[in-house]
Parts: sequence; structure tokens; C-alpha cells
Amino acid sequence: MAKQKKQPRPKAITPKGFRDYFGTEVTRRKHMLDQIAAVYHRYGFDALESSAVETVEALGKFLPDVDRPNEGVFAWQEFDEKGNGDWMALRYDLTAPLARVYAQHRNELPTPYRRYAMGPVWRNEKPGPGRFRQFYQCDADTVGTASMAADAEICAMLADTLETVGIPRGDYLVRVNNRKVMNGILEGLLIDNEVTRALPRNLEDALETRMSDWQFADPDAVLRTIDKFDKVGADGVVELLTTGRKDQSGAFIEGLGLSNQDASRVVAFMGARGESNEATIGNLRALLDGSKVGTEGVDELEQIVDLLEAQGYGPDRIVIDPSVVRGLGYYTGPVYEAELTFEILDEKGRKRQFGSVAGGGRYDDLVKRFTGQAVPATGVSIGVDRLLAALEAKGRLSNDGQGPVVVTVMDKSRLADYQAMVGELRQAGIRAEVYLGNPKNFGNQLKYADKRNSPVAIIAGSDEFDAGKIQIKDLVLGAKIAESATLEEWKERPSQFECARSDMVAKVREILEAENDG
Amino acid sequence: MAKQKKQPRPKAITPKGFRDYFGTEVTRRKHMLDQIAAVYHRYGFDALESSAVETVEALGKFLPDVDRPNEGVFAWQEFDEKGNGDWMALRYDLTAPLARVYAQHRNELPTPYRRYAMGPVWRNEKPGPGRFRQFYQCDADTVGTASMAADAEICAMLADTLETVGIPRGDYLVRVNNRKVMNGILEGLLIDNEVTRALPRNLEDALETRMSDWQFADPDAVLRTIDKFDKVGADGVVELLTTGRKDQSGAFIEGLGLSNQDASRVVAFMGARGESNEATIGNLRALLDGSKVGTEGVDELEQIVDLLEAQGYGPDRIVIDPSVVRGLGYYTGPVYEAELTFEILDEKGRKRQFGSVAGGGRYDDLVKRFTGQAVPATGVSIGVDRLLAALEAKGRLSNDGQGPVVVTVMDKSRLADYQAMVGELRQAGIRAEVYLGNPKNFGNQLKYADKRNSPVAIIAGSDEFDAGKIQIKDLVLGAKIAESATLEEWKERPSQFECARSDMVAKVREILEAENDG
Repeated sequence: MAKQKKQPRPKAITPKGFRDYFGTEVTRRKHMLDQIAAVYHRYGFDALESSAVETVEALGKFLPDVDRPNEGVFAWQEFDEKGNGDWMALRYDLTAPLARVYAQHRNELPTPYRRYAMGPVWRNEKPGPGRFRQFYQCDADTVGTASMAADAEICAMLADTLETVGIPRGDYLVRVNNRKVMNGILEGLLIDNEVTRALPRNLEDALETRMSDWQFADPDAVLRTIDKFDKVGADGVVELLTTGRKDQSGAFIEGLGLSNQDASRVVAFMGARGESNEATIGNLRALLDGSKVGTEGVDELEQIVDLLEAQGYGPDRIVIDPSVVRGLGYYTGPVYEAELTFEILDEKGRKRQFGSVAGGGRYDDLVKRFTGQAVPATGVSIGVDRLLAALEAKGRLSNDGQGPVVVTVMDKSRLADYQAMVGELRQAGIRAEVYLGNPKNFGNQLKYADKRNSPVAIIAGSDEFDAGKIQIKDLVLGAKIAESATLEEWKERPSQFECARSDMVAKVREILEAENDG
Repeated sequence: MAKQKKQPRPKAITPKGFRDYFGTEVTRRKHMLDQIAAVYHRYGFDALESSAVETVEALGKFLPDVDRPNEGVFAWQEFDEKGNGDWMALRYDLTAPLARVYAQHRNELPTPYRRYAMGPVWRNEKPGPGRFRQFYQCDADTVGTASMAADAEICAMLADTLETVGIPRGDYLVRVNNRKVMNGILEGLLIDNEVTRALPRNLEDALETRMSDWQFADPDAVLRTIDKFDKVGADGVVELLTTGRKDQSGAFIEGLGLSNQDASRVVAFMGARGESNEATIGNLRALLDGSKVGTEGVDELEQIVDLLEAQGYGPDRIVIDPSVVRGLGYYTGPVYEAELTFEILDEKGRKRQFGSVAGGGRYDDLVKRFTGQAVPATGVSIGVDRLLAALEAKGRLSNDGQGPVVVTVMDKSRLADYQAMVGELRQAGIRAEVYLGNPKNFGNQLKYADKRNSPVAIIAGSDEFDAGKIQIKDLVLGAKIAESATLEEWKERPSQFECARSDMVAKVREILEAENDG
């Protein structure tokens, strides 16, 4: 009741990069998340909902491609009474909070701890078309076991999940690689110069020479170059890894300075996927040339494949693919990615594969940040919006967009009677409402029903009340008749008819059933 | 792969006032929200999920009891490339964002717009026991109609919702009041002094006197005093409204300076609830003594009651109660509150009524902040955690806490066989997992199963594999036997038995069904 100070009107807009979700945008996502949660639950995973706000130090700094002042997160400082301020931030994924939760509650939680989580995450990134600063993730992770059975299980679960939500077998592929194999290939790559060229080819002999003169290639730069494979092809990658390359605009991009031999080995690694998983494993072993960490990685891939094949998950669903590179810095072992292989048209009308909808891997050092003790962990994150877009492209979204039956208002003094009608319909489980806008213009009431995507309108004025009747207007049929040139096929089903008030529920149900069948 | 700078270990804790939710804490809330959403949907309400982040100006300042530096919200400034900074904040409720959404999208949305929303909100308040800075709300609102039918509908829907989630009729009451009636009573209350005492009793005559000499009581202070009714009783309220009162500690609290007559009228208003809604309406009309705004409020209450009674919602479910005071400043008409009337024991073991779990009302001016045009609106918010606590007190929470069947690992080289077992169980819709911790200590595996609340453990070593058999351990039965002194009643149901590998799924299902029946 205190008077508000006169202020300029606030703008009715979301902050830049944020958006609202309406009606079926909400319920379809929810339906898909429910389906995913059911699979996760059947696999023994327990729900976790951690707080959306974390201390900045607990979140850590693991985001790739950080180009914003706040290093990719939304953060603020909270001052207490004494003026001491802690920095807090919105979570940017569900993995960093899991590591914090496990470290905090590890004495009460079972080991291993299988948990799933779904919810919004926030990124303080430059927004772009279709790129928002709040979006959903849906994760499943197993913390506290180094067993490859945990990684295999998550790959199998990912395949089951995709089929459950409506991606048929053959339209997806879970591709598995191993960071250790990549390290075996990428670590110790030398810049090709006079010193390194003079080194003995054999590493053990080379170790006898002066290491301070060696120049190592930056593994991250090599990884970033590999990631351009889809754009520039194998030859382009070799050029970028060695002496450099002119891009389409004519600009010259410096090379990383590897020898042709090493560059070819890197490209061969990317393309090492064979006809079968066994062939891929053979290719990798040959390329790794006995590297200890690399061989450990191939052994792990072999274990995963064996476990999966014993359960019937063959290479038509889950396959070893050395070209998989996951961006996040914290992976330490197997990495995996679910790719949808069917084609869609891009914005320029060209066909392209739909691409990745989920990814994850093993991150054995995240919990250690808090506890100092190694706690192995592995897990996957589903890109909820991407997967929804895929289901939309496949026409697999649930058809839950039907509006309510609208009871129109012909006589304002009969509001209680109209309310009684919707009461009966709702009791019968039928979505229904009375028109609550200004009833003066009947046309507006039908326009409203149209906007609501209503299947049926009920009409009753004083004549109908006196006769104990109502009018039922079949709006879906009406729309179909309006669309189609010939009325023939609709002749036997009138789009508006009169019936006894007492038959209302039965008649409305008949129409709804006919529409849901049709 | 770039080396992280050596830093002190982060603390594994949530920020103060935040918490995590585990397992059934998540799924039971979700189950309840699903039930509520189904009722809202049947009433014709559409889902809306607005962004969690809003501009500070869009949120406005409507929080009561603000005692924190940031005025009750978590806010931060976002700088763009030019160094211009907008203030952004986490939403503190779901109503302020609805007003923004409706103002922003009003041309595309139907009018009236019925929407429901559920999700976390954030308050930058001092945390306390059971009082968190992130919590769930679950709202339904109708925007764009001044019709009392909208308010009546929401009261009816609230009653239906409570019954749907498991609060039986008779254990709750939706109490309705009207801000206009309160204004009719409270506005124009004069401080009792020489000037005002000399005023003619009749307001119109009084208006002829010098208004600048009048001293009005602060309506907010009167409201706050009324809110102490439960604590200090009618006599205490009269004292606080007039000359003041000694509290239990002996400290004297200044009175508001009303005349005894006015104070009695206020207390009479609070206690104006009669034997029936009709009686209450009669009492209110008598007390209001022709006040224009007050009478308008009573007329509205009468309309609501008429509409509800026509639909069968009598005073056993929804009742007019002039003692309802809602804290938020933006209400302009009917206000309503759902109260649970059954008794629970408080922390000191005393019986008390459970109290309020939902509240709302009409707020006709919130959208106007943005658009300048009046847009009437009314809606309710359910306190999700309070309602969950109520269901727990009533033993009505869904019993979904059963853990997975755990397939134990006796022989590490047989991992693929164990995985095949859980594969079969999962295929049959049974929640199951292989133990993925270190299998060396078998006791740890059974402890794990216990911690997971597993109903069944499967055991198979090389003997069993050779014989094509497995051992099934009924863990729930085992626990019951361990609890009870006599073994008699369990004689016919052994807690561990051997069966053929091929009978595994059938036998496990038998046990699960027996447990769910028992």
C-alpha cells in the first residue's frame, strides 16, 4: 500500500541469450526426459539434484573456448555482515557439481555411486542463433570405479536411451575412443628441425641425447588441428601439422612444424577405424609402436568392446572410432560420443548428417581436486535440445499439443451452468475450460478456441438450456472440411450437431477418440 | 593438457543456504509435480518455462521482509564490449516472470492466458533451519480476465490438486478473502487524537473538515498487527492497535493509536467468519457500513461462492475467511490460501495444525508495469516442499525407494556373463546392475546392496556357472528375519535359494511381486 516511486516502465524482454519455452516445448522435453530417466533408473542409477548455485572455486575452470570476461560462467560476489565476500556462480554443467557432491557426501553415498541428473545449466557465452545461455543437460555418471565395465555400461545405456526416445537402430552410432591412445600418439611429437632430425629414431636411444634441445609440439594445438579434419580433409590436416596451408580466402596459416612422417602418423590414427572393431584395434596397435600409455588405452578399448559384444551390442550400435575428439580438458581415458547418422537438410538446403547428440568419457581426477585422493569416474551428457531437434526431424515428438474443450459463454448469467459442464468433462478426464474472456463477441470465442488448438467447442444459449440440449462443434473436423475441396468424405460426420445435455461427456469423448484414431 | 596452476584444494561444500537432493527426495517431488501438472492441464492450463535469469528491472521489487543488501535477490552486472552493464538476477518467484512473459508475448498468446509453471526460485535471504535460498514453486495463473470465475476456478483447482496428491477431503480448507474488503476496513483508519476525535462520525461530513490535520494509521502496520492474531489473540491485537502492550518479556510495544472503537472493528473483521459463507457475507456487509471498495470486495466474494457452490465445492472445502492476510504487496482483489487442518507434532512435541501450503490472489497491476495498460490476472503458488512434508507426515509419499537387483561378482573373469544377467533383467523391466566396485571382499558387495536398498542379490561363482545355476538372495526377507524374533512365519520362504540360470528373471520377479504385495 506504500506508494511505489514513479519509475520508467521496465522493458518486457528476457536478458540477451535467454528465452522462454511454451506449451509443447515444455511438455515434449519433459516427456523425453522422463523416458531417459526411466532407462537410467532401470540401469540402477539414482537421481540427484544438486543446487544450481556453486562456489566458483568448487566449479573450477574446465570450459573450452572461453572468450568472455567472467570465464564462461555467471558469477557474483556475496558479502556477509563482516564484509567478506565469496564468489558464487551458476553451474555450467552437471559434472563439476557431481564431483563436488561426491567429495562432500562420499561417506554416506554407496561406492560405486551411479547417479543421473537433469536440469538447466548456464554459460556466460556470446549468444548466437540457436545458441542460448541457459540450456538443459541430462547426465549419467558412475563414480568410484576404474572398471571398464562402467564405461561399457554407459555406452550400452546410451544406445538403449536413444532407441527408447525414438531413434531407431541404424540411425545412430555410439563411437568410442580413448584419451590414452591419443596421448600415445600425440605426446612426445617433436618439431621437425635440425636438432630433432638428428635424433636417433629409437626413443630409448634418443633419451640419451640432450633433452633441453628438443622442441615438443603442443598437444593441444595438435588436437585442435585434428578437429578440423571434417573441414579441410586429410591432406589439409597434414599441411597444418607440418609447413602450413593457404585457406580459401588465400590467407596463410602457419603449420605446427611436425615432420611429414609424424603428421602422416597422426592422420593415419584419425583414420584408423577398420572394417570391424578387431581390425581397428589391430590398426591402433600397429600405429602405437609399443607406446605404454597408448597400449593401455587400446587394452581398455578392447575390454569395452568385449563386454559390449557379450551383451549383444555390436558395431552396428557401438564402434571404436579413433577420430572422436572430445573438447573438455578433464578426460583421462575412454571418451564416447553418440552420433545420429541420418541426413537432414541444413539451412542452405544441402544434405548433411545430423551429428552428435551426446558425449562423455572418463575423468579420473575431478574428485581428486577436492579430496586429494584419486576417485575414478566416467559419465555421459545428453544434449537435450539437440536430441529434441532430432526427434522433431524424425517426426517422433509426442503429439500432446491438443488444446482443451472450450465451453463458450452465450449467456453471462449462466456462468455457473457452464462451469458445471467443464466440471463434468474434467471429472471424466477430459481437458476442458469455460471461456473466461469478454463473451460479448461470439466470434472471438471461436478464435480463442482456434488459438488454443481446441478439438471441440460446446455452445449453449437460453434455447438450449430450456430444451435441455447443447450444441457440439467439432473444430478439428471443421478445419479439415475448410481445407479440403470435396466435402464428400465428411458427409456422415457433421461438424456441428445438437445433443442432449446429459449426453455431453459421451459425445465429446466420441469425437476425441475419432480424432485420435484418425 | 596445459598444466593447471597449483592451487589450494577447493572446499567440497554448497554455498550457505543451498543443498542437494538425493534419490527419492528428487523422484517423490517429481511424482507430486507430475500429479499437479496433470490437474492443471486438465483445467486447460498450458505449460510455461521462463528463463531463470531476468533483468532486475523486469523482476521489480515486491518481496516482503527484505533484510539483505541485494534486496532479496541474487543479482549481478553483465558488461558488454562497450563496458555498459545491465543488472541481471535470478527469479525470486514465478509470478513476476509471468507478467514479463505476458507483456512480451501478449500478441501471440491467447486471451485469457492460462498457464502453469514449476521450478526453482532463488531468494537472497538469511538461511535458517529448513529455510533454503533455492526452493521449488508450482504456480497456475490466468492472465487477461477480470472475471471472478477465474478466481473461483483456481480455488476449485487447488482443492482438486490437494486431493489428487493425497490430502483427503476434510484435511484441508481453501480459505478466501478479498483485499478490497480489507481496504474497506483498513483504509482511512485515523489515529485517535484530539483532532480526529473531533471529526464528525460520518465520513462525508468529515471530508468537509481540514484533511491536513488528520492523522491516518499506516495500513501496512495495521496489517502486520493483524497477522499477530494467532500469537497474541483478539485482546492482544486490540492493545497493539490502540495504546500498546507488554509482551512476555515485559518489554512494552507501542500501540498504533487507533481508537478502541476502530480497533474493535478491525478485530471483529478478523473474526467475521460465520457458520456459513452466507453468514460471513452478512457479517462483512454489516461491518463495512457501506464502504464502496469494501462492498465491491464482498460482492466479488459472493460471486466466487455462488460459482463454487454451483459446482459442488461447499464450505467443507472452500470457505470465506476474513482472517486470511497474504504478505505480498501486489494483490488487488481476492486472496486465497490452502491450509492443512490435520495436526502434527511440532519440534517441542506439541500438537499444532500443519498450516498453509499454498496461496495466491488477484494482482491486476503487475502486467501494467510493462505495458501501461491494465491487464487483470489471478493465480496461485503451491509451496512444494511444505506440501511434500505434509504428504510425508500423512504417510502418502510414493514408495519408489527400492534399489536395483545387484548381481554380485564372484569371478572377475566372468564380468561379461554378469553383464548378460543384468541385461536380461533390464530387458524384463527390472531395475538391475552388476557390482562394479572392487569385488575382492564379498561382504562389501552385500553391504553395498544393503546401502542401495536392493531387494535381491544374485550370486554365481564357477560352481554355479558349471551347473547352469545361480543363487538368489532375498534381501528384504533376510532383513525381516533378522528383525523378528521368531522365524516361524518365514519358514516357507527361504531367504536364499538356488535356481536354474534360465529361471532367473521369473524367480526374481516372483520375489519382487511378493514384496510389493506384502
